[in-house]
Amino acid sequence: MTVGRILERKGYGLETVSPSTTIAAISHHLNDQGIGAVVIVDDSGRLKGIVSERDIVRALAAHGPSALDKPAHEIMTANVITATEDEPVDEIMRLMTESKFRHVPIARDGKLVGLVSIGDLVKHRITELEKETEAFRAYIRAA
Amino acid sequence: MTVGRILERKGYGLETVSPSTTIAAISHHLNDQGIGAVVIVDDSGRLKGIVSERDIVRALAAHGPSALDKPAHEIMTANVITATEDEPVDEIMRLMTESKFRHVPIARDGKLVGLVSIGDLVKHRITELEKETEAFRAYIRAA
Repeated sequence: MTVGRILERKGYGLETVSPSTTIAAISHHLNDQGIGAVVIVDDSGRLKGIVSERDIVRALAAHGPSALDKPAHEIMTANVITATEDEPVDEIMRLMTESKFRHVPIARDGKLVGLVSIGDLVKHRITELEKETEAFRAYIRAA
Repeated sequence: MTVGRILERKGYGLETVSPSTTIAAISHHLNDQGIGAVVIVDDSGRLKGIVSERDIVRALAAHGPSALDKPAHEIMTANVITATEDEPVDEIMRLMTESKFRHVPIARDGKLVGLVSIGDLVKHRITELEKETEAFRAYIRAA
């Protein structure tokens, strides 16, 4: 199973904002969209980082109220791992768990096409394991 | 498998603060402890609510910088579901997914003894399903 299949089910597309977007504006955006992170891209659409709920709380702890006026590029997680649609889900899951990332942007030919969260992967993995277990049960019933 | 077994592995105990604790102080606390939520209890140790990273971002969107001076009881999620150690993991998982809660405080004889996150449950569920699948594989190899 590849990451592309997850995006087919979840839907392609992702929420992006520019590096100069303030944390105040990003908080509104996350709240309005009911999401946990936005991807930061420059004018050419190049990936610069991710700002998650956790990044915002960390910035508040470090800077107090002035964190809200700061641009995304000052508080974002800049070290972001991306993946392509053909990568196996298990590999991405292992990578996320190891590096403690919760979101992985998915790129196709160098362009961002979606965002996969650890929640998406885990939901998928549970469904897959339940199906496999059910198949084994059916096999044993038939034996 | 019960919720108690999850706590045995993860560790008992939970981070609590009083309802008057400011969001600024809670942000520091979450950041220092590397956790995603604190449980709000009154002087008698009674559960009043939960403040998560998402609650903080929502408060920032609603109130701007002044959110940081607000006490926990003004922005917390007050509608919290608790569970006891003897409840089945699957039941809690279903409940969390349905009601979109990410954290469930665990009580024993009316006293809070731990906090289980959806991440804890999911981690457990994956391990369990992988074990079951492996057992089926062994059965089929032996057949």
